[in-house]
Amino acid sequence: MKGVAVTYTQQMLDTYPAEMNLDRGKLARAIDALGACAQACTACADACLSEGAEALPMLTRCIRDNLDCADICAATAAVLSRQTAYDARVSHAQVKAAAQVTKTCADSCGEHRDAHDHCRVCEEACRETERILIELLPDLEPSGDAPSRPSQAAPQT
Amino acid sequence: MKGVAVTYTQQMLDTYPAEMNLDRGKLARAIDALGACAQACTACADACLSEGAEALPMLTRCIRDNLDCADICAATAAVLSRQTAYDARVSHAQVKAAAQVTKTCADSCGEHRDAHDHCRVCEEACRETERILIELLPDLEPSGDAPSRPSQAAPQT
Amino acid sequence: MKGVAVTYTQQMLDTYPAEMNLDRGKLARAIDALGACAQACTACADACLSEGAEALPMLTRCIRDNLDCADICAATAAVLSRQTAYDARVSHAQVKAAAQVTKTCADSCGEHRDAHDHCRVCEEACRETERILIELLPDLEPSGDAPSRPSQAAPQT
Amino acid sequence: MKGVAVTYTQQMLDTYPAEMNLDRGKLARAIDALGACAQACTACADACLSEGAEALPMLTRCIRDNLDCADICAATAAVLSRQTAYDARVSHAQVKAAAQVTKTCADSCGEHRDAHDHCRVCEEACRETERILIELLPDLEPSGDAPSRPSQAAPQT
Repeated sequence: MKGVAVTYTQQMLDTYPAEMNLDRGKLARAIDALGACAQACTACADACLSEGAEALPMLTRCIRDNLDCADICAATAAVLSRQTAYDARVSHAQVKAAAQVTKTCADSCGEHRDAHDHCRVCEEACRETERILIELLPDLEPSGDAPSRPSQAAPQT
Repeated sequence: MKGVAVTYTQQMLDTYPAEMNLDRGKLARAIDALGACAQACTACADACLSEGAEALPMLTRCIRDNLDCADICAATAAVLSRQTAYDARVSHAQVKAAAQVTKTCADSCGEHRDAHDHCRVCEEACRETERILIELLPDLEPSGDAPSRPSQAAPQT
Repeated sequence: MKGVAVTYTQQMLDTYPAEMNLDRGKLARAIDALGACAQACTACADACLSEGAEALPMLTRCIRDNLDCADICAATAAVLSRQTAYDARVSHAQVKAAAQVTKTCADSCGEHRDAHDHCRVCEEACRETERILIELLPDLEPSGDAPSRPSQAAPQT
Repeated sequence: MKGVAVTYTQQMLDTYPAEMNLDRGKLARAIDALGACAQACTACADACLSEGAEALPMLTRCIRDNLDCADICAATAAVLSRQTAYDARVSHAQVKAAAQVTKTCADSCGEHRDAHDHCRVCEEACRETERILIELLPDLEPSGDAPSRPSQAAPQT
């Protein structure tokens, strides 16, 4: 059973005062998935640390991947939450890194899913986020080699 | 209309492999509120930047408070997501700082709620988070002046 | 032997375009110490994870404290790096939380300083940062119970 | 005149308890540059906010790029600070994203370097970091399409 929580992501996008080239629903889903994944990874690293002395040495790779995934997902959520003077080259590269780390972390957690329930839940969070990011990536494709800023949202005077 | 998003916070707490002194439902609500508030503040700072040249100079305090609130809420969510070797003095001090910044930021956004819808939504996110944190604070009270670690969760061998 | 690195903290404060109530040298030292401490704690958590299977179970509290310290110090450095519309109540509460976590983490690392050199270095980073923060705290004291904003730096029009 | 600050990055790498495939001096330089760049960008965004009402509307792109650069550099510094179970595919993708955002941010700050000293200093921080990251990138190249983990540092039992 998945949990749900109140978020303001969609409302913040709906009240954004300038134009936006990206699909707001798709973007909101990606931002929320990244936030939920960062939380799950932080919690999974900590739950791994609370496993017994015999399990712990086998979980070090998982803990490290959790920590990387938490940091990268949090930074990516922040980048995607900003629409002003949006630079597709930055968003695209950052979302690619996030897609990679969610895959790496899902694989690590997946190795322990039968032994540890928190790894099973965290694997699910990572796989779902990876799937959503891969769907978003084409929309972020920089157009041409020019310093592409496809949604020049901010009113520059 | 508030949005909802899938989060894994409650599931991660339910699968935590050691004991926990805190109420898991209350803790999950606080962690989710902090994550949603950090996102709203990041988005509100950016939406403020996209307002017109005449509005912008009046929004600089709001932007700064948004950025502080986003950073502090994100760090606090991470601290509360960790149960291993939990130190009440750290959690208590950090949650107090988060309660302060959500109040400060709600007040700043509140000054612009009639002019800017994103400030209205962000004020709501901040006030809700402040309320939840203030409810949580007594549970985090360090007991006595000893180096209190009330929920010594990790199996130390 | 301590390392040194190029930072731009002092230069950024010296080129800040508005007035500032705080001593710039003292502030720069605190921001740099927080940044260096966050890095040391991230690295110490990881080095602990690379210790052998017999040492690892005794290091879980140290790892957790390292992770809290890294997150809180990074957020505090960001808050102190912002001078616009500075709110002493937020800075004061956040610096107090950082002083607490650097003390807690220094104590944790200190227990392992003889066994693990990285814990000895990280303890030093935490103690130095705690000392600098405690020196800074009185300068951040909110004046009275009014919504104190002592260095109202931003030109609000 | 550049400032220098005490960091523990090199010491933490020198006391790392397992093997490491990367050059420690090069890695320490990259981590320190990323930390210093994140700080400069946070401070530059805030200094831009404190500019006068006539300058501010032209600085919104610069502020947004500063905020992205700060978030991405901080996450990248954390990823590079971890050596346990190092996954080259994650580090490589994340460092590429950081190289992109430091270039984008340097270009934005560069447009304002004559008008605003803080933009000049921040451009310097970003260009230096981009140069160091581009030098590091070939060392992080994942070898082949296998789940490459070139420096499997952690003693897995």
